[in-house]
Amino acid sequence: MSTSTVTRESVSRVSEPSRLRGYVERLVEHADIRLDGDRPWDIRIHDERTLRRVLSTGTLGLGESYMDGWWECDAIDQLVERARHLDIDRKLSSPITWLRTAESKVRNLQSPRRAFEVGERHYDIGNDLYERMLDRRMIYSCGYWRRADDLEQAQEAKLTLVGNKLGLEPGMRVLDIGCGWGGAAQFFAERFGCEVVAITVSKEQAALARDRCRDLPIDIRIQDYRDLDERFDRIYSIGMFEHVGAKNYRTYMQMVRRCLSDADGLTLLHTIGTKRSSTATDPWIGRYIFPNSLLPSAAQITGAAEDVLVLEDWQNFGPDYDRTLMSWYANISGAWDELPAYDERFRRMWDFYLLSSAGSFRANAIHLWQIVFSRDGLASPYRPDGIR
Amino acid sequence: MSTSTVTRESVSRVSEPSRLRGYVERLVEHADIRLDGDRPWDIRIHDERTLRRVLSTGTLGLGESYMDGWWECDAIDQLVERARHLDIDRKLSSPITWLRTAESKVRNLQSPRRAFEVGERHYDIGNDLYERMLDRRMIYSCGYWRRADDLEQAQEAKLTLVGNKLGLEPGMRVLDIGCGWGGAAQFFAERFGCEVVAITVSKEQAALARDRCRDLPIDIRIQDYRDLDERFDRIYSIGMFEHVGAKNYRTYMQMVRRCLSDADGLTLLHTIGTKRSSTATDPWIGRYIFPNSLLPSAAQITGAAEDVLVLEDWQNFGPDYDRTLMSWYANISGAWDELPAYDERFRRMWDFYLLSSAGSFRANAIHLWQIVFSRDGLASPYRPDGIR
Repeated sequence: MSTSTVTRESVSRVSEPSRLRGYVERLVEHADIRLDGDRPWDIRIHDERTLRRVLSTGTLGLGESYMDGWWECDAIDQLVERARHLDIDRKLSSPITWLRTAESKVRNLQSPRRAFEVGERHYDIGNDLYERMLDRRMIYSCGYWRRADDLEQAQEAKLTLVGNKLGLEPGMRVLDIGCGWGGAAQFFAERFGCEVVAITVSKEQAALARDRCRDLPIDIRIQDYRDLDERFDRIYSIGMFEHVGAKNYRTYMQMVRRCLSDADGLTLLHTIGTKRSSTATDPWIGRYIFPNSLLPSAAQITGAAEDVLVLEDWQNFGPDYDRTLMSWYANISGAWDELPAYDERFRRMWDFYLLSSAGSFRANAIHLWQIVFSRDGLASPYRPDGIR
Repeated sequence: MSTSTVTRESVSRVSEPSRLRGYVERLVEHADIRLDGDRPWDIRIHDERTLRRVLSTGTLGLGESYMDGWWECDAIDQLVERARHLDIDRKLSSPITWLRTAESKVRNLQSPRRAFEVGERHYDIGNDLYERMLDRRMIYSCGYWRRADDLEQAQEAKLTLVGNKLGLEPGMRVLDIGCGWGGAAQFFAERFGCEVVAITVSKEQAALARDRCRDLPIDIRIQDYRDLDERFDRIYSIGMFEHVGAKNYRTYMQMVRRCLSDADGLTLLHTIGTKRSSTATDPWIGRYIFPNSLLPSAAQITGAAEDVLVLEDWQNFGPDYDRTLMSWYANISGAWDELPAYDERFRRMWDFYLLSSAGSFRANAIHLWQIVFSRDGLASPYRPDGIR
């Protein structure tokens, strides 16, 4: 997510409409973006209140004014890519971001009590939407496109990559933290012969996952990761760490250590990462898409894992999330007619979410990381060769 | 490096010789080490003052008393491996370590003025020693043993790995930070057709490197990395970051960013890493082997690179340094007769350095990391596959 946000002082300085417009035009021209231009990434303003709303409330105002139909853009992904390449969002700062940062310092926004909120607010909005947007396994995380031609192949390749990196073998007891609709657990049970305990904070996800994994050695639970104290041969989380929160990163790492049976036990962390450490999420994303979410930085992850787990391997394939998100966008764009329960405002919200995220990955403002840790280190070097 | 060190209070509590011995025996028995036992990793005490010296001055006393012939051990690598597995060094702490930590907070131990000290004190001790200990290219860093049967192959494989990870191509302008005796620069000029600028802080290394690289497009310079402000297609350092120091990690990353010509330019950092962030080096290593050195943690590296470089890939092959060190030990053990300038005390110092380091890698207390960063991120995912 990216946009321009300024201090209250700046807003008052440029309060006259024409001066306001001139100010914004100068700001975005560095990124070769024009107001009311005719290229796919240009912004067509339908309501002049847009500029003031964006300048005073940052990305929250940008996303909300798009949801309200105040502006249009033929390629929001390209717009956001350009804005983030130039780091426009960083040059300015919104009072809302300051407030969120302050709040995150004093409150644990991902406390056990609050951890289930994202389950209800995002993952429970309706399996019908996700069924149409995602691949047939309903894997709601970045695919691996190296040798893939479509989303189905990319998601299967990603799961194969994870299984191989973990060295999964028949009979291994494996923990899946944040299992979604159970697609990964099902894959590892069927293809690798593992026994999987899979946890989620979403009731809708758990119900569908139980149904899908009915005849397999898979235990689907609605459970907070902090409550786990069992032994596993391997542990992974795919696209769940974004909900853990900086205050709990170390708790997460310690939980993984506690639950790995053997000194050479492996764990894989598949997460979006950000280039800059923060404790507050983007205000629009936090309000409309992922409440209580936070993208970790590399420094936050390594700091949390220090003296708890041994770093063995780190792969960044952020550009593959761009392709994944554009595939989801293509899928859902062709399916809204079958989803009458979602109104126009929701649809615009969803498009803005998918496309602005794709643009952020394309600009390398955010990354996709797969990190392998061992519990205590290995006797011979970790070898992911021939796997990637 | 590892051993047991205690506070002054503990030493006085156990000041009577028999109680002192009992105290140490209990401490090391958790690691299955015996005083005057007969297994290869047991310690045979020749001078009873050893225990007091170790307890009062930690690893400094352990190493010095070994140099003085006060104790023997048939396999120091196995002794240290056992001690570090049990983390014996962490349970106690030495006043010397506190002093060094305090000093590192107020002084830049790796300031430009001091940076050349390790050149004179370690790398200039004599090319004759290194010629006998190392492979024919004189690569003084961890080899890559995956498909190697001996040190020659392991070092060639390591250089090939680095060249492939960086995607070196003919005509590329490449910077080598801390070039040693020029073996890597020579390899990349000969095998990959690159033009190399290679810097070192050692006069002896520079002289030999110039001689070896005479007919190649290689510029060997005696220069501090901080003084560089030129453009390169690729930048690497192999076994140099251990001399940079925590106060300068960010300066190093910023220098690399400044000197990479292109947004998709790559840099490779090959360094020993430690599991615990620190600002002070081991006192014995600091005094006798590498003055002003410091092993970085993953948190220190990622913190220093945050918002400066984009992490693309991280490989840990620490166990390969164990094999490399044991090869160096075997080489030098058979060559002391040809090196009469080095006395018995020096030889014992050198053995203790090589073997205790090997044991530390074997215990996974320290690691060997190759980290690839791009300057601003890549358009498609970084793919080191088929390379490792």
